[in-house]
Amino acid sequence: MTMPSNRPAPDLDLARDLFARIHDATRDPRGGVTREGYGPGEQRAHDIVRAAAEGAGLRTRTDPAGNLYMTLPGTDRAAKRIVIGSHLDSVAQGGDYDGTAGVMAGLAVAAGLRRAGFAPRRDVEVMAIRSEEGGAWFPTPFPGSRAALGLMDAAALATRRMDGSVTLEEAMRQSGFDPDWCRSGARELGPHNVEAYVELHIEQGLVLEEAALPVGIVTGLPGNRRHRFARVVGEYNHSGTTPRRHRRDAVLAAAELAHRLEAAWIRLEEAGHELVCTFCVFDTGPRAGFGKVPGEVALKLDVRSGEQRALDLLFGEMHALVAEIEARRGVRFEMGPEQGRAPVPMHPAMIDALDRAAAEAGVPCRRMPSGGGHDAQSFAGAGIPAGMIFVRSQNGSHNPDEAMRMEDFDAACRVLMAWALAAA
Amino acid sequence: MTMPSNRPAPDLDLARDLFARIHDATRDPRGGVTREGYGPGEQRAHDIVRAAAEGAGLRTRTDPAGNLYMTLPGTDRAAKRIVIGSHLDSVAQGGDYDGTAGVMAGLAVAAGLRRAGFAPRRDVEVMAIRSEEGGAWFPTPFPGSRAALGLMDAAALATRRMDGSVTLEEAMRQSGFDPDWCRSGARELGPHNVEAYVELHIEQGLVLEEAALPVGIVTGLPGNRRHRFARVVGEYNHSGTTPRRHRRDAVLAAAELAHRLEAAWIRLEEAGHELVCTFCVFDTGPRAGFGKVPGEVALKLDVRSGEQRALDLLFGEMHALVAEIEARRGVRFEMGPEQGRAPVPMHPAMIDALDRAAAEAGVPCRRMPSGGGHDAQSFAGAGIPAGMIFVRSQNGSHNPDEAMRMEDFDAACRVLMAWALAAA
Repeated sequence: MTMPSNRPAPDLDLARDLFARIHDATRDPRGGVTREGYGPGEQRAHDIVRAAAEGAGLRTRTDPAGNLYMTLPGTDRAAKRIVIGSHLDSVAQGGDYDGTAGVMAGLAVAAGLRRAGFAPRRDVEVMAIRSEEGGAWFPTPFPGSRAALGLMDAAALATRRMDGSVTLEEAMRQSGFDPDWCRSGARELGPHNVEAYVELHIEQGLVLEEAALPVGIVTGLPGNRRHRFARVVGEYNHSGTTPRRHRRDAVLAAAELAHRLEAAWIRLEEAGHELVCTFCVFDTGPRAGFGKVPGEVALKLDVRSGEQRALDLLFGEMHALVAEIEARRGVRFEMGPEQGRAPVPMHPAMIDALDRAAAEAGVPCRRMPSGGGHDAQSFAGAGIPAGMIFVRSQNGSHNPDEAMRMEDFDAACRVLMAWALAAA
Repeated sequence: MTMPSNRPAPDLDLARDLFARIHDATRDPRGGVTREGYGPGEQRAHDIVRAAAEGAGLRTRTDPAGNLYMTLPGTDRAAKRIVIGSHLDSVAQGGDYDGTAGVMAGLAVAAGLRRAGFAPRRDVEVMAIRSEEGGAWFPTPFPGSRAALGLMDAAALATRRMDGSVTLEEAMRQSGFDPDWCRSGARELGPHNVEAYVELHIEQGLVLEEAALPVGIVTGLPGNRRHRFARVVGEYNHSGTTPRRHRRDAVLAAAELAHRLEAAWIRLEEAGHELVCTFCVFDTGPRAGFGKVPGEVALKLDVRSGEQRALDLLFGEMHALVAEIEARRGVRFEMGPEQGRAPVPMHPAMIDALDRAAAEAGVPCRRMPSGGGHDAQSFAGAGIPAGMIFVRSQNGSHNPDEAMRMEDFDAACRVLMAWALAAA
């Protein structure tokens, strides 16, 4: 890399301006912002970001799955590139930073390099990835990054949007993209042309806030075991005339499972395991009503950990509780299909490189596991060295109140800049 | 009463035919039957019953609240009448017997008396009461019978149907009835013109089935304490990145309340109290979804007992649990308005009279409390001696599988006939 006299700085003004414009363009009248994966909200964000990247002198292109690439070309175009990626979709009524902050950081770094007149050896490529929020739109893991890496299969394309409206294939086609390309196994990115992948993301938790640190270097992404379509089936009956011994109350059965599984979770934490367990949905549905013993409850169960053993221990407890509660209460748990994936560690060399970059930028940080899943695991799964930088955040994520201090974002961008200068 | 040579028998063929015709006319394509209070389903049943009563030689009239009266006139028209009443509405996707069996029994007795040529001294009046299913249609207690007794107030008329569509006043008006009459305090029935009220109903529980008895004589109707619009408010968050100590999970808080309140219920039962406790609805609502810690749960709580003390003991436990769970979990329980009513005993002279009638008819029976509320409590509340007969039933009630054996119905009608012969 040709080094000019001054250290290049991230273009924070560009990022700040884009945060505001994307917020305004995708505001949800119910509160927060909504950017549907492979839908109009996400597309508006892509349009804004693409125009801004071109204005900053980056080259842009879109792959057949709709992912957007914004490139500062290197002096050696045949060298493997470095990719700084994140997503622009949000959950319904989400916030301004989940996903978006990573794309903004990539742009701030690439535009900052360009503004300072740096000519990197390798291409520095900022990637805006499609449809990362699997819980909100298409419940299949990371369709955008997996498509770019040639890892999307026919089953993923057949996934139906959570609201039942369209399949992923239909949504891609309606957005002008090419599901047949995805099915063909063709790929835009792979170990053959990518040297390293880095993703910046708000932490979404309060570990950094409590440790008073602006930045975290991620050691690994969690695995999970999930039941998205579980239900408890008991018997509807009159809530006045049915004595306790004749009831098969689905709510009391599900409540016992939730309460006792929480106790098992606490025991595992006390034994030193790190994991989270959430009954995201608990719904007696349209047949329930005042005056009836509830005969059915729909449940969605999400268990996550960086440690496969912790997932398996809690699921073992869950299966034992289900069998015991079924036998005692005369109800049936129909857990439905189980989904899951193993935990994914970040590449050790990437963790070290990001640590060094933080030291060079003078930004205090710590290593930490990620609680959420991210596109980085698609890259790791494809055999590309991948790493992640967390920015301190407040108010969690997936809500309109997501918060991130701009000085923390600046610190994280300086770490990313230091890494890019070393890697590219 | 002029006694002919043969004992009169209930007209079972008439009842059997009407059960079938009402079923056919109010079948719900989703399963079971649906007869909305002050709606088209209930009206179809009233039309069928009215025509059949006229065909059997009874006089019919409707009061301004829509209640239907089918009368076998007595020889002394100035004497106080006896009323045999029940309702013809059903819950959505309900069964054939809840409510309907009582009107059928009244008609079988009145038509049987008329067929046998009996001339009672008092009018024998069969009453088809409007809109008894408060949990399904208008959530105000017993609007039909309360209107007939001059007990309906402005608040009841303003009650909105459970689906939010119309107020009771609007529904009455749309059905051609006169809410202004209800508001005026005028009454069709009262202690001045009614000697006694009897209501026959399927048991809805399994007490008689387990005791192998066809008939029960009801000693009292339950009181209740209710929260129809409670909610637990926690905080929405990311289900992967929010550690347990930062969660305010509304589902786990509500599950703890349900599980531990059930334990308190069991302790009260073990101490000799009779009561039932139901979380009829438990719903995380539209803002919940996979990938989020649930921030809100809507609950509907229904506690019933024949014993005020049992209601109060369980509510005391509930309030203590709510305070403890709120403090520990950082959630808020918004219980909303409490509704309730005190238990209502049946009139001792009526219990004795129905016992004697059963003995005379040779029908084995037992005394028992009612689990559900019934129009009989409006009459008791108006100062009219009221009693109830339960018929053995299977499969509970408020569901399409409600079941009642015709020989049990016959036995109960013979008890009712014996009582009417003695009372009229």
